[in-house]
Amino acid sequence: MRKRIVAFGEVMMRLQVPGHALLSQANTLQYSFSGTGVNVASAMTKLGHDGFLVTKLPDNPLGDSAVVSLQHLGIERDFISRGGKYLGMYFLENGFGQRASRVTYSNRLESSFNTASLSDYDLGLIAEKADIIHFCGITLAMADNVRESMKVLARKVKEKGGTVCFDCNYRPSLWEGGYAAAKPHYEEMLSLADIVMMNEKDAMYILGMKSKSPHRDGQLRELVPEVAKKYNIRSIAGTHRSINSDTTHTLRGYLYKGQTFHFSDNLSFSVYDRIGSGDAYTSGILHGELTGFSPEKTVLFAAVSGMLACTVVGDTPLATEMEILSAMEGKMEDIMR
Amino acid sequence: MRKRIVAFGEVMMRLQVPGHALLSQANTLQYSFSGTGVNVASAMTKLGHDGFLVTKLPDNPLGDSAVVSLQHLGIERDFISRGGKYLGMYFLENGFGQRASRVTYSNRLESSFNTASLSDYDLGLIAEKADIIHFCGITLAMADNVRESMKVLARKVKEKGGTVCFDCNYRPSLWEGGYAAAKPHYEEMLSLADIVMMNEKDAMYILGMKSKSPHRDGQLRELVPEVAKKYNIRSIAGTHRSINSDTTHTLRGYLYKGQTFHFSDNLSFSVYDRIGSGDAYTSGILHGELTGFSPEKTVLFAAVSGMLACTVVGDTPLATEMEILSAMEGKMEDIMR
Amino acid sequence: MRKRIVAFGEVMMRLQVPGHALLSQANTLQYSFSGTGVNVASAMTKLGHDGFLVTKLPDNPLGDSAVVSLQHLGIERDFISRGGKYLGMYFLENGFGQRASRVTYSNRLESSFNTASLSDYDLGLIAEKADIIHFCGITLAMADNVRESMKVLARKVKEKGGTVCFDCNYRPSLWEGGYAAAKPHYEEMLSLADIVMMNEKDAMYILGMKSKSPHRDGQLRELVPEVAKKYNIRSIAGTHRSINSDTTHTLRGYLYKGQTFHFSDNLSFSVYDRIGSGDAYTSGILHGELTGFSPEKTVLFAAVSGMLACTVVGDTPLATEMEILSAMEGKMEDIMR
Amino acid sequence: MRKRIVAFGEVMMRLQVPGHALLSQANTLQYSFSGTGVNVASAMTKLGHDGFLVTKLPDNPLGDSAVVSLQHLGIERDFISRGGKYLGMYFLENGFGQRASRVTYSNRLESSFNTASLSDYDLGLIAEKADIIHFCGITLAMADNVRESMKVLARKVKEKGGTVCFDCNYRPSLWEGGYAAAKPHYEEMLSLADIVMMNEKDAMYILGMKSKSPHRDGQLRELVPEVAKKYNIRSIAGTHRSINSDTTHTLRGYLYKGQTFHFSDNLSFSVYDRIGSGDAYTSGILHGELTGFSPEKTVLFAAVSGMLACTVVGDTPLATEMEILSAMEGKMEDIMR
Amino acid sequence: MRKRIVAFGEVMMRLQVPGHALLSQANTLQYSFSGTGVNVASAMTKLGHDGFLVTKLPDNPLGDSAVVSLQHLGIERDFISRGGKYLGMYFLENGFGQRASRVTYSNRLESSFNTASLSDYDLGLIAEKADIIHFCGITLAMADNVRESMKVLARKVKEKGGTVCFDCNYRPSLWEGGYAAAKPHYEEMLSLADIVMMNEKDAMYILGMKSKSPHRDGQLRELVPEVAKKYNIRSIAGTHRSINSDTTHTLRGYLYKGQTFHFSDNLSFSVYDRIGSGDAYTSGILHGELTGFSPEKTVLFAAVSGMLACTVVGDTPLATEMEILSAMEGKMEDIMR
Amino acid sequence: MRKRIVAFGEVMMRLQVPGHALLSQANTLQYSFSGTGVNVASAMTKLGHDGFLVTKLPDNPLGDSAVVSLQHLGIERDFISRGGKYLGMYFLENGFGQRASRVTYSNRLESSFNTASLSDYDLGLIAEKADIIHFCGITLAMADNVRESMKVLARKVKEKGGTVCFDCNYRPSLWEGGYAAAKPHYEEMLSLADIVMMNEKDAMYILGMKSKSPHRDGQLRELVPEVAKKYNIRSIAGTHRSINSDTTHTLRGYLYKGQTFHFSDNLSFSVYDRIGSGDAYTSGILHGELTGFSPEKTVLFAAVSGMLACTVVGDTPLATEMEILSAMEGKMEDIMR
Repeated sequence: MRKRIVAFGEVMMRLQVPGHALLSQANTLQYSFSGTGVNVASAMTKLGHDGFLVTKLPDNPLGDSAVVSLQHLGIERDFISRGGKYLGMYFLENGFGQRASRVTYSNRLESSFNTASLSDYDLGLIAEKADIIHFCGITLAMADNVRESMKVLARKVKEKGGTVCFDCNYRPSLWEGGYAAAKPHYEEMLSLADIVMMNEKDAMYILGMKSKSPHRDGQLRELVPEVAKKYNIRSIAGTHRSINSDTTHTLRGYLYKGQTFHFSDNLSFSVYDRIGSGDAYTSGILHGELTGFSPEKTVLFAAVSGMLACTVVGDTPLATEMEILSAMEGKMEDIMR
Repeated sequence: MRKRIVAFGEVMMRLQVPGHALLSQANTLQYSFSGTGVNVASAMTKLGHDGFLVTKLPDNPLGDSAVVSLQHLGIERDFISRGGKYLGMYFLENGFGQRASRVTYSNRLESSFNTASLSDYDLGLIAEKADIIHFCGITLAMADNVRESMKVLARKVKEKGGTVCFDCNYRPSLWEGGYAAAKPHYEEMLSLADIVMMNEKDAMYILGMKSKSPHRDGQLRELVPEVAKKYNIRSIAGTHRSINSDTTHTLRGYLYKGQTFHFSDNLSFSVYDRIGSGDAYTSGILHGELTGFSPEKTVLFAAVSGMLACTVVGDTPLATEMEILSAMEGKMEDIMR
Repeated sequence: MRKRIVAFGEVMMRLQVPGHALLSQANTLQYSFSGTGVNVASAMTKLGHDGFLVTKLPDNPLGDSAVVSLQHLGIERDFISRGGKYLGMYFLENGFGQRASRVTYSNRLESSFNTASLSDYDLGLIAEKADIIHFCGITLAMADNVRESMKVLARKVKEKGGTVCFDCNYRPSLWEGGYAAAKPHYEEMLSLADIVMMNEKDAMYILGMKSKSPHRDGQLRELVPEVAKKYNIRSIAGTHRSINSDTTHTLRGYLYKGQTFHFSDNLSFSVYDRIGSGDAYTSGILHGELTGFSPEKTVLFAAVSGMLACTVVGDTPLATEMEILSAMEGKMEDIMR
Repeated sequence: MRKRIVAFGEVMMRLQVPGHALLSQANTLQYSFSGTGVNVASAMTKLGHDGFLVTKLPDNPLGDSAVVSLQHLGIERDFISRGGKYLGMYFLENGFGQRASRVTYSNRLESSFNTASLSDYDLGLIAEKADIIHFCGITLAMADNVRESMKVLARKVKEKGGTVCFDCNYRPSLWEGGYAAAKPHYEEMLSLADIVMMNEKDAMYILGMKSKSPHRDGQLRELVPEVAKKYNIRSIAGTHRSINSDTTHTLRGYLYKGQTFHFSDNLSFSVYDRIGSGDAYTSGILHGELTGFSPEKTVLFAAVSGMLACTVVGDTPLATEMEILSAMEGKMEDIMR
Repeated sequence: MRKRIVAFGEVMMRLQVPGHALLSQANTLQYSFSGTGVNVASAMTKLGHDGFLVTKLPDNPLGDSAVVSLQHLGIERDFISRGGKYLGMYFLENGFGQRASRVTYSNRLESSFNTASLSDYDLGLIAEKADIIHFCGITLAMADNVRESMKVLARKVKEKGGTVCFDCNYRPSLWEGGYAAAKPHYEEMLSLADIVMMNEKDAMYILGMKSKSPHRDGQLRELVPEVAKKYNIRSIAGTHRSINSDTTHTLRGYLYKGQTFHFSDNLSFSVYDRIGSGDAYTSGILHGELTGFSPEKTVLFAAVSGMLACTVVGDTPLATEMEILSAMEGKMEDIMR
Repeated sequence: MRKRIVAFGEVMMRLQVPGHALLSQANTLQYSFSGTGVNVASAMTKLGHDGFLVTKLPDNPLGDSAVVSLQHLGIERDFISRGGKYLGMYFLENGFGQRASRVTYSNRLESSFNTASLSDYDLGLIAEKADIIHFCGITLAMADNVRESMKVLARKVKEKGGTVCFDCNYRPSLWEGGYAAAKPHYEEMLSLADIVMMNEKDAMYILGMKSKSPHRDGQLRELVPEVAKKYNIRSIAGTHRSINSDTTHTLRGYLYKGQTFHFSDNLSFSVYDRIGSGDAYTSGILHGELTGFSPEKTVLFAAVSGMLACTVVGDTPLATEMEILSAMEGKMEDIMR
């Protein structure tokens, strides 16, 4: 049942101020390498599959360090291309309470990944190998050459019988032309996708759809089926998340499949590191689909996976199938000896 | 009023991943040395007595480091025997929220302590000196030679007029034969003991007693007097502890003495490091008994001692009598200048 | 609109045990340099003004390190005098839950600042430059020479048309003679001050005033106007703060000005580092007064400034005007990208 | 030219006191995972080949952490078996000057690797894949089951046309019966090996051979050809190493092949971390043999590889072919920009 | 005698792997902010002058952190412009012995400084204030807009009677067109400069001059007077540096002034952090010239300043005049109490 | 052969900047507790004796931390008095190469120890127990009350048959009146002492003796016998130490006893932490005298003890008798497994 999951995406260096200090107060940084593709490929490895990443990294010590970090996460290095000059980076200052976290990017568009072209990747081999290929809206925002690689790759994998997964993940700051600029690219990816991660906001803002309902639940129930129908998508999934006044988070997942909605319980939990939770949810959906879980089980598995990702340090989900299944039974233990 | 408290038990090296990372994410460990005997002997020292530990440690740098750590805690080194080859160790990964903490043991049965025999200890001198000797159910689970040392030592101390304290502390993973294997050894220790730490679960599961009550309070009130009578025990004490939904803990202590139950208030508090709280409670009971506190005062003193142990780093209780008495008055200060 | 704010006060070295360990458990300390004057001068710099500190520091590596730290905070070094032999220090052990934080002072009275005399400072130049000068009750408690410098300086600044701000900040442990010894000095400073930081307790305990009300709100409304009238003070401001059972704090600021009380909302928030919150509040009041905010805006600005100071590491407030104004609109963001 | 190198050996957890402190002075440890097999497989990966490790690791968080660490080093996880209970560990205290480093082992014989049997490994697949298989004398010292696995595996690889490499690496403390007990096992491995790492001491002490020469150079030149002839070994290589009075080390490598000795220059250099230098030398020999370097080039390549391994933190060699070739040209740069 | 020294240059963020690990081995970085201009302005502050920096920094948390760091070093913030998007960065891996240090740059040309134009700086005010202005060849290599700012600024300062200092500091990797591209810009700066830092290599390679001497001493003595004459330069200074086999460095400074050469002693010393030593030498020359030291004293003062900069952590020289003068007397103390 | 060694002296808190940074560059400190008395008592414990310290410590968290640290070192707490207000402290910045280390003291004269009087110590009990009592010239410099305690204690121990050891250890900065003020107190201590640590400089400078020899060896051989005779001292010992150009140190010990000089070899070695080496030498002499070593063996034992103390972190010697004896045989091992 072991499958090959290939993610396409950029590796970013995350440089984080330890604890809750500001950059102007500290003098050390913790670094790691992540990105949506990294997170999904790595999470699928922990869930028992073989995770691959299609990306390009500079041929210098920063690129070497990124490769070693991907190996550390269990990601196969077969589809990693080397060359170009730079690696995308961002600095993270953790917030506290009423003070938000802050992210500061370095110049990302000159990175090896964002200046790579189709010929940097062995498309034939990738399409041959991939059981699932995963793309994300962040990558789609980058540059024309990147978008071209995404679309060609999606098409090739589909031709070879692989499954295409697309996570909408719209980041306003990345699209100079706003929703209007994004829409045609999103529509093209949605037409190519078998599994889509999104919620009602993506439908309304990116695709410009209208809802009669004033509430997000109603909007979700109205718009997601329309999207599935229009773009011919097998499964659509996503979450509603809210922050409670006592700083815990509440998460509820949904999966729309076979013209039916399936919802997880409302999960409430303390959060150690919020980043990467969405990718853990995606991985849970993919694993459920690959493994033949019932939709009910899949959506709860994914939500619990998203919850557990909030209890570990770093962006990358680390839970195994056994750990997620055991947490689904809801037993909260103090110490496991 | 200064007394000599002797604890018999193993010193374990605790190797803890800093913060909330997993072993597979980190590359440093914090180490310390602890164990029930260490905790009790050290806590009694902080309460103004002289704490001793009867144990055996390897004659190598790990053993040296353990000895220095015991000295650091104020424990007298007179009864520490050196020799054998290994030190018991465990690795601790701190959980967070829905993710439990994990403990991984190294091979403990080959440790210097667990392979020691009677002749490693100067039984005569120990019995001569001890006002109280403390044993625990973890040690009882180890091996025949360890059990023999416990029983002979308890008997010798009793003969010389010392007080024997036994903490039931049943750990399921340590008894291959389960409750059946444990019962005869527990019964022998209970017959030798003057002060016993336990609650209704020990009576029901280890000793196989039955209760008519479906609730733990009723079970406690029914079974503890039976145990006291059957094994002729002067004082029995213990706690009920629960984890609240907001992650605080609630603790209530009891002391059965003179055929009467005494209960502390229900104490609710935030927890920094849960390990060692039970040993702090035990130390509070012993101190109350040694100092001639009223049973009401003793049980509250012990419960507050258990609570304060949850506010400090590490297994070992650090509060002084003055600090506990002051916390019993319930004043929560922001900063003490 | 950029003004020159001059604070008069001691620089203390803060030596803090990392995390929640006790001094007897750890072997490293984090150090920084702070004090009410440092905090106010630095906070005013962040708010767009020029902050100065009138102080004296030893001419040795500790003094050098303090100067560098003041520079780091953006404080101008023009009024820092060098000489004398020592720097005041205190050790801080962070509490947790039911265990209070502990502060241990080294011998402070021999410090360069507390043994300095009038001639160590260029009074003429300071008075010439200061738009506002800030004093505090902690400094007033130190020694006769220090008190003399305070009073002469306040008088000189007033003569030159500057504004005098006095923060009552009574610390019981610093006054050997108690309230009786403190009263005359407080009265003299109050007569010199244009802006005063205090609440009803200062009126009752230091000034010996009586209130008919049994509640602090009633006491405040009764006594503050009396103080303003008696000592001819333009603006009086302060806070009521309480610690909630879930360990969050609640803060409410008031500003009495033009014979009217203005109150902020009750703000409730999690606390990362409580020290320095009062100085952030003071800075907010001073900024509002200097900038011509309405009293309603000033008091909320100050309270939010006090709240944000609790979300950063260290004593010194770090928020800019823009950050405070944005937090006043109450938007709690997760991550700012 | 990319080859598959398979090493057979134990993974040990190295727990190192930071800096130069003793275990009894510190409270943190740095941990990593290493072993001769790990070092060789990893080094070959850096040199452009695919490195595999045949080993067994416990199925617990320690084993998980070891696997992740092997992945980090680029080692393929295909031949890693999981099960058993323990992982071998050692504690390292760095010496300084006249004070030697100290190594303290935990009980190693109960480790998953040392209790594994033939059936834990997929011998057929391993023999199919391996271009070279590497064994070492440390492993040979462990236990009968381990020795059996070594010999069977060596034979299978040989049958399939693979090359067998054996590193004598005799550790006196590991053989209870001394040289006499070791000799038959060494002789069996030598008969199976194509490439052997050893020097004159192994010939004299383990194999009991006599030399007429009083000096190690003469002994080497006399005995190594005898060994090659007697056990029918294609290539024999090794080093002479000495510590100079200014704490630098001097290293000279030899390679005996085609009935001729080839020597590297005497290399003198500063040492940062000495452990792993021998394995780097071995890897250099294997790479030279696989790549078809001349013997002269191979022996210098190996010696420089051993030298560079002394300039990096940790046991595992990290130099690439390009870095070694560039260092062979002897250019010492200050900073590479 | 306090003067105003203004340096023009970029602030770079230095991200350094702690100790001697590689980027691929570590997970933390130490960061600081430096650059030739930063180093010179800061060093002059330590020597008792007022140091300013003309630069441009992004208006984000990285820029804030850089500003705070400049304040920390005592540099006045009056001439720091804010805006643009990025900050130049480089990663540093410390070498050891035969392994060279490695520097990896991020994309520098898009930095706020390198995209700034003349209008970003208040040229009039700068020229008004500067007693000395310092430029460097690294900045000259950047971009046309940067070069224009340099030349206009140099001219303005000269017109107002200030002294222009130019440090040749040729970095081959920064000039795409090599020496030919650099020469006209260097010639223009040399014509504007009163004090120049260079040695014979700059004369031969950049300016294309020929020497009859085969040795660097002869070349220096021949070419430097020619340069001084041709470009009408008041003082030219520089160093010869060599690395000894025992890893100590030897440094000898020269100052050509009044048509005469002055040389320091050959200083040999251990090196802790080599970066910044050249800027410390420059600062020593500037201080000597400003203070009216004899040329003999100036050149020794500068050389000792360069030596002491090698004994402290970080790029920025930290020695005071007193410390340098005391080291010139050559007393090597063990501990200063 | 186990003896009781009692040292009289102050416990100082050492606050050290990690690595080689200056106080103005760092933000953390490492702290420990030391002093000549601490070092000697602790070293004697490692050598198999029982070490006691007569001192006074404040009854606050700093004092608690000091006590725990003494326990850690194995020192018995029986003679530690608690009370007073302060603990002496000093800050240490490590030098490098040509840059000396710097020590900055806090105000020491107000410390609990330096304000203690005779009645703070149980003189009778101390005199009863001490086999040897150790005093030092640093303590003698402090204050009249301290000097009185020293002299009375020395006399009492002598009366009870104990041995008095006095280490001259003259620190110029501590004696306001210079040698003249010190002389009478030194003479009184010398008359009371059985074993004295000193060299020719003490004789010439403190005692004002003249030598005909221009060299220190000649001066030593001439003056030490005179001192022994004049003050009736059984054994006098000390060292000559020099720093070599390659930063190694050379140490040679002497012992004058039975009217004969005994010298150790010249030992040359690398130094990790120089502080405490003299106290290690003293401890070696005391151990030799107590154990009945020949003078030749004693002086070499002491010198090697002093050398080994330079190879460990911290002030306090840590070598055992076995380790010193083994180092005396001069075997330099790489790694001890």
